[in-house]
Amino acid sequence: MTNSPFDNLYVALVHYPVLNKRGKNIASALTTIDMHDIARASITFGVRGFYVVTPLMDQQVLAHEVIQHWTEGIGGELNPFRKRALDLIRVVSTFEDAIMEITQERAEPVITVATSAAKHEHKNGRTITTREFANKLNSKDSHLIAFGTAWGISEEFIQNCDFMLEPVYGVTGYNHLSVRSAVSIILDRICKRDM
Amino acid sequence: MTNSPFDNLYVALVHYPVLNKRGKNIASALTTIDMHDIARASITFGVRGFYVVTPLMDQQVLAHEVIQHWTEGIGGELNPFRKRALDLIRVVSTFEDAIMEITQERAEPVITVATSAAKHEHKNGRTITTREFANKLNSKDSHLIAFGTAWGISEEFIQNCDFMLEPVYGVTGYNHLSVRSAVSIILDRICKRDM
Repeated sequence: MTNSPFDNLYVALVHYPVLNKRGKNIASALTTIDMHDIARASITFGVRGFYVVTPLMDQQVLAHEVIQHWTEGIGGELNPFRKRALDLIRVVSTFEDAIMEITQERAEPVITVATSAAKHEHKNGRTITTREFANKLNSKDSHLIAFGTAWGISEEFIQNCDFMLEPVYGVTGYNHLSVRSAVSIILDRICKRDM
Repeated sequence: MTNSPFDNLYVALVHYPVLNKRGKNIASALTTIDMHDIARASITFGVRGFYVVTPLMDQQVLAHEVIQHWTEGIGGELNPFRKRALDLIRVVSTFEDAIMEITQERAEPVITVATSAAKHEHKNGRTITTREFANKLNSKDSHLIAFGTAWGISEEFIQNCDFMLEPVYGVTGYNHLSVRSAVSIILDRICKRDM
């Protein structure tokens, strides 16, 4: 299965509910470079769709403006590679909306997977490694990995997902990668599922 | 050797000589988010120093302002994790300056390694995989990996390096990751050298 795109893998970048620095639930603002970097990583590793999840209407408008500039506007003419990447982006109000859309697209159950830079105890011990997750992709089910902006997705959100991925451990104990880096590393690791 | 930081690994983000879209050599402008993301990835994976290479004085001033804000200014107070990461950054005018500084720091030969999203024929066939490079880190030599901004480091620069790393291949043939993603993935792969 190596080197074939995943027709059952989706990525979500979650802007609500996420934590602020003090651990309170907030809706975070869009960071447009997240859209670019994660779309580029998604297309590189064969992800089927990349959901930008935000309930804030003004942030949805901004997301659509960025996408339009690069897919239909002058950006797409100047940089066709960027156009291909940003074509993957789908803007939705809630994570549930993403799940519903995927269900319509593939007519299979959607397995949801949370990520966090910090170690959490997932209910029922459902924390899995990247390799275990990669093996799950061999099933017909759809799979949606959620990445949090700001200080990470909320505890309740994590517990509502079917599984949780182990954090990306480096070598120094420092665990404050950008979400752009975390998505890139995790997709690269998943892609090596047969190694 | 897994899970110990690398005291002989350095990263350079090169702003000259790099290519523009038409393949001409230019000096690119600083992208401050590159500094943040690459510093955070560097500290995560135990890199000893992260060189921002730019001959442009105004860009050096900007780089120092960003570093100062986050290491000595209010940014460091608000976010001590960011301070730790940005403390790794060293601003130099040329790649040769970085090599000289590393030589003074470790008194060992500096092995230089170029990266590119595109496949190049390196002189003497010195293109190596991430795993081969990771094995080299077991020697005493210092190692400096160069990442290009804009459309990548120039051909002459690549040929002047001792080795060249294989591009990061995904699964779709799309090879236009951001430099932030490429650095993160390559450091993660190197870190898994004993796997």
